[in-house]
Amino acid sequence: MPVVEVHLLEGYSPDERRRLAESLTDATRMIIPAPAEAVTVVLHEMTTANYYRGRMTRQGAAALPDPCAIVLAFLDALGARELEKARLLLAEDFSMHFPGTEPMSDLQELVEWSKPRYSKIEKHIEGTEAFGSPGSATVVYCRGTLSGVWTDGSRFEGIRFIDRFELVGGKIQRQEVWNDLGETQRLQATNH
Amino acid sequence: MPVVEVHLLEGYSPDERRRLAESLTDATRMIIPAPAEAVTVVLHEMTTANYYRGRMTRQGAAALPDPCAIVLAFLDALGARELEKARLLLAEDFSMHFPGTEPMSDLQELVEWSKPRYSKIEKHIEGTEAFGSPGSATVVYCRGTLSGVWTDGSRFEGIRFIDRFELVGGKIQRQEVWNDLGETQRLQATNH
Amino acid sequence: MPVVEVHLLEGYSPDERRRLAESLTDATRMIIPAPAEAVTVVLHEMTTANYYRGRMTRQGAAALPDPCAIVLAFLDALGARELEKARLLLAEDFSMHFPGTEPMSDLQELVEWSKPRYSKIEKHIEGTEAFGSPGSATVVYCRGTLSGVWTDGSRFEGIRFIDRFELVGGKIQRQEVWNDLGETQRLQATNH
Amino acid sequence: MPVVEVHLLEGYSPDERRRLAESLTDATRMIIPAPAEAVTVVLHEMTTANYYRGRMTRQGAAALPDPCAIVLAFLDALGARELEKARLLLAEDFSMHFPGTEPMSDLQELVEWSKPRYSKIEKHIEGTEAFGSPGSATVVYCRGTLSGVWTDGSRFEGIRFIDRFELVGGKIQRQEVWNDLGETQRLQATNH
Amino acid sequence: MPVVEVHLLEGYSPDERRRLAESLTDATRMIIPAPAEAVTVVLHEMTTANYYRGRMTRQGAAALPDPCAIVLAFLDALGARELEKARLLLAEDFSMHFPGTEPMSDLQELVEWSKPRYSKIEKHIEGTEAFGSPGSATVVYCRGTLSGVWTDGSRFEGIRFIDRFELVGGKIQRQEVWNDLGETQRLQATNH
Amino acid sequence: MPVVEVHLLEGYSPDERRRLAESLTDATRMIIPAPAEAVTVVLHEMTTANYYRGRMTRQGAAALPDPCAIVLAFLDALGARELEKARLLLAEDFSMHFPGTEPMSDLQELVEWSKPRYSKIEKHIEGTEAFGSPGSATVVYCRGTLSGVWTDGSRFEGIRFIDRFELVGGKIQRQEVWNDLGETQRLQATNH
Repeated sequence: MPVVEVHLLEGYSPDERRRLAESLTDATRMIIPAPAEAVTVVLHEMTTANYYRGRMTRQGAAALPDPCAIVLAFLDALGARELEKARLLLAEDFSMHFPGTEPMSDLQELVEWSKPRYSKIEKHIEGTEAFGSPGSATVVYCRGTLSGVWTDGSRFEGIRFIDRFELVGGKIQRQEVWNDLGETQRLQATNH
Repeated sequence: MPVVEVHLLEGYSPDERRRLAESLTDATRMIIPAPAEAVTVVLHEMTTANYYRGRMTRQGAAALPDPCAIVLAFLDALGARELEKARLLLAEDFSMHFPGTEPMSDLQELVEWSKPRYSKIEKHIEGTEAFGSPGSATVVYCRGTLSGVWTDGSRFEGIRFIDRFELVGGKIQRQEVWNDLGETQRLQATNH
Repeated sequence: MPVVEVHLLEGYSPDERRRLAESLTDATRMIIPAPAEAVTVVLHEMTTANYYRGRMTRQGAAALPDPCAIVLAFLDALGARELEKARLLLAEDFSMHFPGTEPMSDLQELVEWSKPRYSKIEKHIEGTEAFGSPGSATVVYCRGTLSGVWTDGSRFEGIRFIDRFELVGGKIQRQEVWNDLGETQRLQATNH
Repeated sequence: MPVVEVHLLEGYSPDERRRLAESLTDATRMIIPAPAEAVTVVLHEMTTANYYRGRMTRQGAAALPDPCAIVLAFLDALGARELEKARLLLAEDFSMHFPGTEPMSDLQELVEWSKPRYSKIEKHIEGTEAFGSPGSATVVYCRGTLSGVWTDGSRFEGIRFIDRFELVGGKIQRQEVWNDLGETQRLQATNH
Repeated sequence: MPVVEVHLLEGYSPDERRRLAESLTDATRMIIPAPAEAVTVVLHEMTTANYYRGRMTRQGAAALPDPCAIVLAFLDALGARELEKARLLLAEDFSMHFPGTEPMSDLQELVEWSKPRYSKIEKHIEGTEAFGSPGSATVVYCRGTLSGVWTDGSRFEGIRFIDRFELVGGKIQRQEVWNDLGETQRLQATNH
Repeated sequence: MPVVEVHLLEGYSPDERRRLAESLTDATRMIIPAPAEAVTVVLHEMTTANYYRGRMTRQGAAALPDPCAIVLAFLDALGARELEKARLLLAEDFSMHFPGTEPMSDLQELVEWSKPRYSKIEKHIEGTEAFGSPGSATVVYCRGTLSGVWTDGSRFEGIRFIDRFELVGGKIQRQEVWNDLGETQRLQATNH
């Protein structure tokens, strides 16, 4: 039964407004256990000529891009080893945190690090989840399974992974990675 | 500059209303890159006697409990091996997904499974993140590091982990776990 | 899905506000075919100290009494021949319009007029309907059946009637009566 | 002084919106005795792209037709014995309730029934009144006088009548008729 | 932090709406010491077809012209001795109140009165201030310095003045003048 | 017909809210020529616990005192030569601007300056007018007539004056004075 009304300046695209409405619906239902159909979101677009702060009209800030789309584009480019394309999506102070190694900040560094671990890897994404944080970052979680080829030429697949991203201003600032690659290798070593 | 107004029935506690306001602020800033200070949330509590649907007054549904608090209480109880206490926080169809094994549904099963892996384990939590999902579940991510004692008596610490929980109606329905335990053991085995 | 918000000055009783909400719900559904459950009415009671017109705070006018209750009280008093009690519910310029006679303005006149028609009569009310008119009157319809005793001592019952009332300022200004008494008598005369 | 604000989805015609505003004004004045000029109704048309329930945009239901217009069209067609045209305005389970006879459900049946009563009849309508009911029906009252020709060729006029209609979904479901025809015939028989 | 929302009928020009927003911002800050940037004014233009009072749609009254512009045009015309042009800006019952003389009502009268005082005068305006009054008048204050030529041919300048105007319906109804001309002449006489 | 709604945090006194409503009414009528009775101002006091900016609840700033009351208290104290009391109402950088002299900043200086001009003076106030300015100052105009005793013992009265004050944060920062004292003395000198 809750009704969420948002007063925002005109200028946001239908898709941006839809993303806002969805985000607010989900945010509401985290506290109030209404069925989705009982949560109403109404957007009121204010004409810039009719909105004043300090006697002056104002412009709304450009919307942030869809954070899940940014993350998926990054993973695609990285998977295809199109490092230049991937770098365009990164913030200045980007850092990566992978299992079993120190943080890295350059994509080429990651490529080198992975070479002795597997000769090919592919991500099968099962879900992405994005939400705003109390700070200035948007957080995206991306999870699924990995398949690929070990350095000895044998294949692997169905290995669970999860990535956590922080985006600021539409750029990826931080990537954290967890997966079962090590556990899988350990089990394989144990079983041999 | 966006203003979010929520019309909700009276009866929610100050803490529940604060959680709602925070959740809506974050949800807004995922799309509109306003500084936090520029996002206003106003809650309008409607007297139940002044709110009618279908000619009848209505009561607001009881708020969901803080999902992060539920998760932390669960992890605490599990860490202390207080399984009965932990079970009270679980939904009927609870399932756990750990690295290197099949899904489990019973906490005792988990305890047995972990015995040959480590003799003691402790979670040091660095962050929890909760958000509403498009479905009926609230998602909580909890991440940090593990410390403990291997079965050979040697200690470990600083091993990264992340847990993903789905809560429905305030009960934990699903737990997924990723960590670097396997990678750590693999590296130790390799180094020996 | 329509939402009706009413801003009214504080001071109306819960029952008066409930009547307003019901009246507005029904009024809305005459045009918009939403199920009742989809029509929301929210009353906003404004503190008189926070409502100004022409720089001055204002008091809300006292609510009109329930028009159906007024009509039922009038019919009760009239049925019991408590004419003084009934007269208290009438406006100055009250008039009655009955089948087969000129308009009457005095209740005693009605009593005299009815004497040769029946020796006893009772109203069995099946429904009352009230609604505001474009003018200053509230209209009430009251329908059901009549039972009683003819002047020859025989009984009648189940004879349909409908009354239309106009109330102004909570007083009955006009009563119009239609019923099947004449038709019934005509049929009885024909059948003899 | 009350202000009624209605939030409705865009798509209603000016005439439909005017009918809604009038209906709400009258509904308000049944409880709050403000002069008409003191009742403000403001309609807020929400862009469908800016209204979400359960994360989805919605369409408003098509408005119901003017119930008085439906009733008048029905009475016109019936008066002209254009039974096919009249039937188009009736609901499946239509029933008629006339003085001195059992309920009828077919218009031809009514025509047959009336033949021995009068050879011609015409309705002079003095007023129609429509209002929404707590259920799903809209109620219309139509009153005025009847003129026509008795079966013996003599004329009558000025005989009061009132009809009550229930419409559901814009179709007439029930007609109830009261009039002074029987009383008039009774008086004529008595006077002869 | 206060937010002022104005619901007004459509039809006001952007400049008229801007003047309204500015006036309301200043009016708010006289009581609430928020910095200008913290005062939000939102204008809601209501479609005339969606605004009803007493069941009827209404038109908004034409806006009043900018009172400072009226006053400046009047002073310009008067300074240039274009009396006809100046008179167009005056109300029927216009009166002028100058130092050391009785009220005057005709501009020609003023011209004659000033002749023995100075042979030429010019207003250098440093500020105008306008505000609505509790009554029907808008008040404009205009202040600055006078320069010109005394009747003896000597020049003067930098002599302070202030004028107060009352405008009703966009016409100047009253002008009151204070200045240091007399004080200056007195000092000059004293010093000689 | 315009309706001004103000959303402000709770905590303002009835008198402060009344001053705000009056100020907004007058501000509106400077642009829209509605009769006062047609301007509605509604104050919505938001519970501090229900108002959030940047995820935090906020407190409203304390209201500014009535600027006319401040000015009148200052003039009273100054008239009674209670300089200490008067000084409490002044801002740090207070300055006075009187006819025929340089700006002064200390009240004692004013007292000395006036001694050769008149031996006694009293202000008869006919009107005060206050309004917010685009900057941070509130402006108060105070006008009326002066009476008193010249240094030669003769009396004067009915001499027009007007004072303009600027207040910042409830303290008087600037006083400007215009009056007909000089003109009166000049005329008296001329007539002798």
